[in-house]
Amino acid sequence: MNSPRQVVEKIIFGDYVLTMDETRPNISDGAVAIDQGRIVAVGCAHDVRGKFTSNTEYSGTDTVVLPGLVNGHTHAAMTLLRGYSDDIPLMEWLNEHINPIEAAVVSEEFVRVGTQLACWEMIRGGTTTFVDMYFFHEVAASVVDEIGIRGLISATVVDQPRNDAVDIDDQWTQANEFIQKWTSKNQHTTVRPVLGGHAIYTLNQAQLIQLRELALEYELPVHIHLAESQFESNYSKTTYGNTPINFLASIDFFDSHVIAAHVIWSTAQEIDILAHYNVGVIHNPTSNTKIASGIAPVAAYLDAGVTVGLGTDGAATNNDLDMWEEMRLAAYLQKVTKMDPTVLPAKVVLELATSKGAEAIGLGSEIGTLREGMRADVIQVDLKNAHQLPMYDVESHLVYATHASDVKRTFVDGQCLYDDGDYLTFDPKSVRRQVTLVSNTIRNCQKNLY
Amino acid sequence: MNSPRQVVEKIIFGDYVLTMDETRPNISDGAVAIDQGRIVAVGCAHDVRGKFTSNTEYSGTDTVVLPGLVNGHTHAAMTLLRGYSDDIPLMEWLNEHINPIEAAVVSEEFVRVGTQLACWEMIRGGTTTFVDMYFFHEVAASVVDEIGIRGLISATVVDQPRNDAVDIDDQWTQANEFIQKWTSKNQHTTVRPVLGGHAIYTLNQAQLIQLRELALEYELPVHIHLAESQFESNYSKTTYGNTPINFLASIDFFDSHVIAAHVIWSTAQEIDILAHYNVGVIHNPTSNTKIASGIAPVAAYLDAGVTVGLGTDGAATNNDLDMWEEMRLAAYLQKVTKMDPTVLPAKVVLELATSKGAEAIGLGSEIGTLREGMRADVIQVDLKNAHQLPMYDVESHLVYATHASDVKRTFVDGQCLYDDGDYLTFDPKSVRRQVTLVSNTIRNCQKNLY
Repeated sequence: MNSPRQVVEKIIFGDYVLTMDETRPNISDGAVAIDQGRIVAVGCAHDVRGKFTSNTEYSGTDTVVLPGLVNGHTHAAMTLLRGYSDDIPLMEWLNEHINPIEAAVVSEEFVRVGTQLACWEMIRGGTTTFVDMYFFHEVAASVVDEIGIRGLISATVVDQPRNDAVDIDDQWTQANEFIQKWTSKNQHTTVRPVLGGHAIYTLNQAQLIQLRELALEYELPVHIHLAESQFESNYSKTTYGNTPINFLASIDFFDSHVIAAHVIWSTAQEIDILAHYNVGVIHNPTSNTKIASGIAPVAAYLDAGVTVGLGTDGAATNNDLDMWEEMRLAAYLQKVTKMDPTVLPAKVVLELATSKGAEAIGLGSEIGTLREGMRADVIQVDLKNAHQLPMYDVESHLVYATHASDVKRTFVDGQCLYDDGDYLTFDPKSVRRQVTLVSNTIRNCQKNLY
Repeated sequence: MNSPRQVVEKIIFGDYVLTMDETRPNISDGAVAIDQGRIVAVGCAHDVRGKFTSNTEYSGTDTVVLPGLVNGHTHAAMTLLRGYSDDIPLMEWLNEHINPIEAAVVSEEFVRVGTQLACWEMIRGGTTTFVDMYFFHEVAASVVDEIGIRGLISATVVDQPRNDAVDIDDQWTQANEFIQKWTSKNQHTTVRPVLGGHAIYTLNQAQLIQLRELALEYELPVHIHLAESQFESNYSKTTYGNTPINFLASIDFFDSHVIAAHVIWSTAQEIDILAHYNVGVIHNPTSNTKIASGIAPVAAYLDAGVTVGLGTDGAATNNDLDMWEEMRLAAYLQKVTKMDPTVLPAKVVLELATSKGAEAIGLGSEIGTLREGMRADVIQVDLKNAHQLPMYDVESHLVYATHASDVKRTFVDGQCLYDDGDYLTFDPKSVRRQVTLVSNTIRNCQKNLY
């Protein structure tokens, strides 16, 4: 007699299931069974149907199912400054455009609406986890908690005036409170608190050491901009007598798990440091090229065993939060820089956006692969649009021909957030109305600034 | 008394109308009136409404209207080989994958279905004109004529075996017949015949001179791959004793209007030649980076006054036909190569995809700008999706945040080809069925080849 089939919350089918798990990477005509936020089975549709049943089944015709994409570095609320100032030299952009407008408009409201807009865009495009760094992090966390996308929200310290803290002591206090609050909610929220340090040029050595200590105490990652620009390298040499990565190594900063964004300007010897300390390097190809910061030596990082993920950076330098574009651009830049089309093949690029990205941000044991026991952060992607026909290789197809608009369904912790046109945990029309209001304020401020 | 309003075929409204015409580039709350395939007026909605009326009006709420995009170099039918072989060294890709499969499968049927698929994708993404180079050009022209997209179809000669000609004499005969046939239909078709020469390494000097003579006789452009690879430079030096551009100049090849694709490997002195002879350079950033051919010095071309357009190349090296991605990548590559974010600003990039692209292919007096008397190749693009909110600068927005999927309507010669989900001149379901059949054949051939 057959044993009865286990009832699960939902089963997602796909013509292809890409697990990103080495042991069984690509399943034709596959399925993922999900219960209580976790993956309970991944396999051939026939096998999964044999063991599981559900009232909620998502057809897999003309789709591929894969882990949700991991956006390892962004500034979600800055989506409200999308295209605010482009094609401008970096320091002019920062000092004459972004800093003044942020001082004028960044508020709880700005961060609430901006983070909602960012979550909307990311969920639409199949991003299920993002690592955020911005002001009013408590507000960002609340939005993430409500909407149900997974967010690593940085409680960030920066030795500069800001609208959400009276001084740097207040920033440390807020960081401690934030981490304790959200850590205690751990099993009931998609919010993960992490520490943030803006950069080595906006924090001094004592502050960086304090950050490391706090990270070790809480056993949490530190999210930081690192080796992004030649300016930063020069600053580091002048101020600390060393290049940025070597300097951080010298103060044992990498004893904590570090999520390092950009990491463009590194020496061969520093690449070994990144590998040795298992620093999570987040590559941001669009931002790095658009504001002309440089091309990160990603192929060399991978050769050296560095854990690399991908990120969009904020929409003020990108100008969108589209991980598919980051995948493509990451591949193109390495191929043409090395003059070798075999560098960063599609499979590797997909890893950066999923399994390796999850490792880079310290969540490799929970997300980034479709495997029994993992959290059910899953996306289902259409394969039926003109720009996707025909298909010979599913991995190449996802990296080189798939767009954010092809994402059909987005699940986080097993909860469906986007279902083929419908958003299930927030009202995009309401977000759109609020974006219009806040952006009108921004435009008015802009007029007064110049 | 007011004069009565002129009845026109259609009026397209837009919250913004980007004319790409220097005299009046950006009209808020604008409109384009169209009659008999031509633009009869461009202006403020209020003014256009005052002078014109139509039974067919397209609302402009949350949209921008601009000239259709010009894809200056592609191989449309190769869309059937999208993702057929990626991440492979160029010569292996060509000799062991593409050439054998093309020899096995390229037929009238292949070109008919592949060109239909390419037209579908391009129309969906707002491309209104493309310059094609492939086999069975008569079939491609028939598809373009039926569907109504504008196609410059190259009657191409290449000194290699091919499935559509018995020998090179047959190729010349076919080219003459093709040009005479389609030139005579000029006023009744969107097909524009041009001459094609594959490359300086697949034609000898006498054949290239014959091509030039034919181009001068018919007063038509010659479409050619030029200075694409280091292989080509080396071949040219060995065979002709000169680099590719200098060699072509030495045989007066540029006396005809040349549409030169890629043009990556050029010296400063050759850049002056490109400018002097008004060569139309088509930049293909995705293909150039993906197969690691190199980064074309586009900023230097523009500084020298070279006319530059953009192209996707074929989907076997891209892997899509998305001009929005080409725009972005063109900007990113120049900015990061020059380490200067002001290089190739959004406005200039948009010109490459529209007005300058039209000039580069010899159609600058007919398409590429929205101006009275120009052919009505017009697109209307949505501005209401998550990744487009908010908006501060329409040009920056189009280049850095707009995707092919945001295109709402596509018009060629005033005819609406795509209307917010509906295709009006072909049946995408039928194309899809045929693509499935042909791609099954390709897969079967692939198995037999290895």
